Amino acid sequence: MTNFADRLIEAITEKGNPCIIGLDPRLELVPKIFFADSEDKTQNEIVEDVLFDFNSCIIDEIKGLVPAVKLQSAFYEQYGVPGIWAMKRSIRYAKQAGLIVVVDAKRNDIGSTAEAYANAYIGKTKIFEGDEAAFGADAMTVSPFLGADSLAPFVEAAKKYGTGIFVLVKNSNPGSGDFQDLTTADGEKVYTKIARMVDTLGQDLVGESGYSSIGAVVGATYPEEAAALRKIMPQALFLVPGYGAQGGTAHDTLPAFNEDKRGAIVHSARNIIFGQINQNVSREEYGHSVRENTEKMIADITGALK
Amino acid sequence: MTNFADRLIEAITEKGNPCIIGLDPRLELVPKIFFADSEDKTQNEIVEDVLFDFNSCIIDEIKGLVPAVKLQSAFYEQYGVPGIWAMKRSIRYAKQAGLIVVVDAKRNDIGSTAEAYANAYIGKTKIFEGDEAAFGADAMTVSPFLGADSLAPFVEAAKKYGTGIFVLVKNSNPGSGDFQDLTTADGEKVYTKIARMVDTLGQDLVGESGYSSIGAVVGATYPEEAAALRKIMPQALFLVPGYGAQGGTAHDTLPAFNEDKRGAIVHSARNIIFGQINQNVSREEYGHSVRENTEKMIADITGALK
Repeated sequence: MTNFADRLIEAITEKGNPCIIGLDPRLELVPKIFFADSEDKTQNEIVEDVLFDFNSCIIDEIKGLVPAVKLQSAFYEQYGVPGIWAMKRSIRYAKQAGLIVVVDAKRNDIGSTAEAYANAYIGKTKIFEGDEAAFGADAMTVSPFLGADSLAPFVEAAKKYGTGIFVLVKNSNPGSGDFQDLTTADGEKVYTKIARMVDTLGQDLVGESGYSSIGAVVGATYPEEAAALRKIMPQALFLVPGYGAQGGTAHDTLPAFNEDKRGAIVHSARNIIFGQINQNVSREEYGHSVRENTEKMIADITGALK
Repeated sequence: MTNFADRLIEAITEKGNPCIIGLDPRLELVPKIFFADSEDKTQNEIVEDVLFDFNSCIIDEIKGLVPAVKLQSAFYEQYGVPGIWAMKRSIRYAKQAGLIVVVDAKRNDIGSTAEAYANAYIGKTKIFEGDEAAFGADAMTVSPFLGADSLAPFVEAAKKYGTGIFVLVKNSNPGSGDFQDLTTADGEKVYTKIARMVDTLGQDLVGESGYSSIGAVVGATYPEEAAALRKIMPQALFLVPGYGAQGGTAHDTLPAFNEDKRGAIVHSARNIIFGQINQNVSREEYGHSVRENTEKMIADITGALK
């Protein structure tokens, strides 16, 4: 069982770039061609199959290009059980395609409940005599809001199953500052305190690559903060949202990397899977657009890293 | 469409107590009788049916006794799709039994993602030409970690669909203090700032009862903080975890109530559904124990409120 950080670093090296593509489907934006095979199906079957088919088309195009994909859980949960089925099938398909899979679920709870969430996404649940992976992702995002004891079960699961977590530290939206940017009585920002916690929690899970399976979410929209956080968490892998649609540039993502140009993965979803695409394209045309959008992102990010 | 707070206050008045029972099943603790009908079923079918059957037995016993139930999402997600099916069916069954249903999901995200979560649990998602409720709960718990703008889509959904949210303000676990209890540079606790945010967000959704559909989670394990928070959020409904198994007493829950003895619902799960129960009971014996445990809790809470 290989350490998650080592697996991710290896995949980044192999693909030659640190890009992670978001699989965030929305039925109203999916090209019509993916609905063509809907005859004789129930609505639930159509929803599940369209979401999965759309994702698998994206996966087929990008599997040779990037190291990882990220599934935003909300976009599946909103469709109820068929959506969740599509998420599960997409995770499996992406892993079979050799991609590292992160579920962006931002879960957080305490005690046995946190353990249940960890088991669900990055571990296994005891069912009768066996242990089963409910979703079987390689990593998930976790909110630190309920404190260090709420993160412990996720760290335990990461250790036990060779998986990883990305703890929300400094997010990409303006409102994230309402809480993360507060200055405490001792003069420190809240996000600094969270970063120290992440660094401490990650000590036990540092792999041969020098990186820990306990990573951090640090938005591209706040490059100055990212530079400070990189120093506090030298061994943490940074998952960087906010590039592209949210306004972060390739240059803005640089502070998330260490001096060796490693240690971060940069995320994009909308601009890749819905950028420059009209709804009447063929499957081939859609795949081609996704590939082009991905190659453009890769060139942008690797260019800035040079 | 009636305001959520008004519906909850009415249910509390009708049942004569503010108790909310947790439907938090774990297969390894469910009495064996619920597995009796498992022949000729796949494992997925067994998991789904056992979880639902167990919940429906509890619902049948308590529907005349208490105003509401709370489903901890993690305990369903850990079983994957069959677990999610069981959650959905249990929500529907509880609503049909006249109970108010809260999903404890502690979701939090930004923009369209937050909107997707809100639609999933307390709203509706556009699917083709119609709008469908993926889970159809009356209310859900939400984390405020990503700031005021991350809560806005949940508030919008509550307004549009007559549903509600409970924002995490001061939780019941010791570690919740790691961030919630930090004193900021202006001398205020973080939980105080969150409370002000909740009070402001709730102004628009105050019903005829005088309470708002934007509520707060405030643990029974911190009665002094609860008293301070009650003053900051006079119109918020408090969802109070931490009674019973976590050490909070009926007396500890009193500061969560207003002087009119209204405005809070007190939660218990483990002591009700797994307390004093051995796994070899009959269905009738199990139901009887759940009823006894619930009646004991009701007597304890209403006694303290007198």
